[in-house]
Amino acid sequence: MIKAELLTIGDEILYGQIVDTNAQWMSVELGNAGVKVVRKTSVGDEENEILTAFAEAEKRADIILITGGLGPTSDDITKPCLAKYFNCEMKMNDEALAEVTEFFKSRGRDLTEVNRNQALLPVCCEKVTNSMGTAPGMWFARNGKVFVSMPGVPYEMKRMMTDLVIPKIKATFTTPFIYHKVIQTIGLGESFLAEKISAWEKSLPPHWKLAYLPSLGEVKLRLTGIGNSQGDLDSEATALTEKLKDRIGQFIFGYGEAPIEVVIGNTLHERNLTLSVAESCTGGYLSHMITSVPGSSSYFLGR
Amino acid sequence: MIKAELLTIGDEILYGQIVDTNAQWMSVELGNAGVKVVRKTSVGDEENEILTAFAEAEKRADIILITGGLGPTSDDITKPCLAKYFNCEMKMNDEALAEVTEFFKSRGRDLTEVNRNQALLPVCCEKVTNSMGTAPGMWFARNGKVFVSMPGVPYEMKRMMTDLVIPKIKATFTTPFIYHKVIQTIGLGESFLAEKISAWEKSLPPHWKLAYLPSLGEVKLRLTGIGNSQGDLDSEATALTEKLKDRIGQFIFGYGEAPIEVVIGNTLHERNLTLSVAESCTGGYLSHMITSVPGSSSYFLGR
Repeated sequence: MIKAELLTIGDEILYGQIVDTNAQWMSVELGNAGVKVVRKTSVGDEENEILTAFAEAEKRADIILITGGLGPTSDDITKPCLAKYFNCEMKMNDEALAEVTEFFKSRGRDLTEVNRNQALLPVCCEKVTNSMGTAPGMWFARNGKVFVSMPGVPYEMKRMMTDLVIPKIKATFTTPFIYHKVIQTIGLGESFLAEKISAWEKSLPPHWKLAYLPSLGEVKLRLTGIGNSQGDLDSEATALTEKLKDRIGQFIFGYGEAPIEVVIGNTLHERNLTLSVAESCTGGYLSHMITSVPGSSSYFLGR
Repeated sequence: MIKAELLTIGDEILYGQIVDTNAQWMSVELGNAGVKVVRKTSVGDEENEILTAFAEAEKRADIILITGGLGPTSDDITKPCLAKYFNCEMKMNDEALAEVTEFFKSRGRDLTEVNRNQALLPVCCEKVTNSMGTAPGMWFARNGKVFVSMPGVPYEMKRMMTDLVIPKIKATFTTPFIYHKVIQTIGLGESFLAEKISAWEKSLPPHWKLAYLPSLGEVKLRLTGIGNSQGDLDSEATALTEKLKDRIGQFIFGYGEAPIEVVIGNTLHERNLTLSVAESCTGGYLSHMITSVPGSSSYFLGR
């Protein structure tokens, strides 16, 4: 299976001045594209740290996705580090220069020298167009492995990833399906649940993996399968879930992400039933949860 | 300077099913304690990946802070990996067993076998009490380096870190002060700002570092200094800021985190002035921003 490492570059991550939400978003997109993220790494804006991280990631992963450190200011050094790592010189990229010039022009501003330098790219990379900002992305390929450098600004990175990087990854690598099924349970703590289903869990085929995702009052079970056919995985997941129902059926309230109040609402609606509640300790919170569901007025009578 | 690496363990991070907010919080706490975070790493629940990450982190950092993978279920393997890495056996820790028993008792529940096993600890570690949950933390010391394993549940980790881990780090290592000063600017893009202050930036002493944190319409400048005396750093920061004012004084609206609408409100209040606005394109958003500040009714007359 194709492996990816996500590398985030920037002191602001290490200092904790921003939360790295890019990595989470990228993981989901890569998973949907059949690429397995094997590691996430964050390093600061220091040449040695960055070059070491490049070398380590290249050993582990097939695809190395880098975000951050592409700004026009002197604390951003991802681009010179990439040029050094791939041992190639920087040259003005005419197409990138035209794009950054147009970006400024469309906003009625003149191009400054520092922004002009954003179009300077290592000659051994392919430019990846940034349709939302001034720093172009870069695609490096060597020995069957790929490094992609993208801006750290979330909306710039997301657009570049969706429109250009994911399609290019799919065109370059052969990727399998990754299938997730989430089984939502309520009323049994994580450890009690684990005891009840341990024999079932041990019997899972090797291409299926189980994870427990506990939250207040609920435990989600996430089944993850890897295969070549989405249909096969879907059938297998259904069969595995049926066996699970024999053991903990009465604690399962849904499959997916719909919260308990939505599931209850749908059930009431389907069966044409109504609900009212009497609350004391919860101080109206139960009613609040129920009425937060659009359409709840058709079944909720009040408290 | 004492270096730390943050290691997050769990497939849910790599799959992007949760955002790792722990690492950001820990970075801030460590920074305040004078410890420099040099890297953040996330790996999945795979023994080889975890052991490799331990070995790499030990080479780079003095303190390795690990979160996640301590749950009672079979997908959580951080503890056996630590036992293997430090080459020591697991044994029932009586104090930990008493704590987890009490935790269940206080909630009116019996201890299950899987939870009982949470008190099994590698004999070469010191137990770190988890006052908010059932999985004890672990402190390993070897060759002047420290590994600390903590639960991934944010409120359990935060309490353990604040009450026990940070004080123990301060008692074990000698740490300097890390000083941050944020200078808030408005009205000048990042690259224009960078050109105006490039000579000032180049003249910064080596123990000071500058970062640009751009957001919509604003650019924050973050000055970070490292030293032994908080007072000295404070005076240096003031002197550096004065020189900065000579260059971009008219674009500076504040120091710290207070947003522009609060700064404007305070200025109006101090000078006993009032404000009203006429909006067209912004559709009331300007009024919304101004009135979102508590006390704004004393100076805002409406639109």
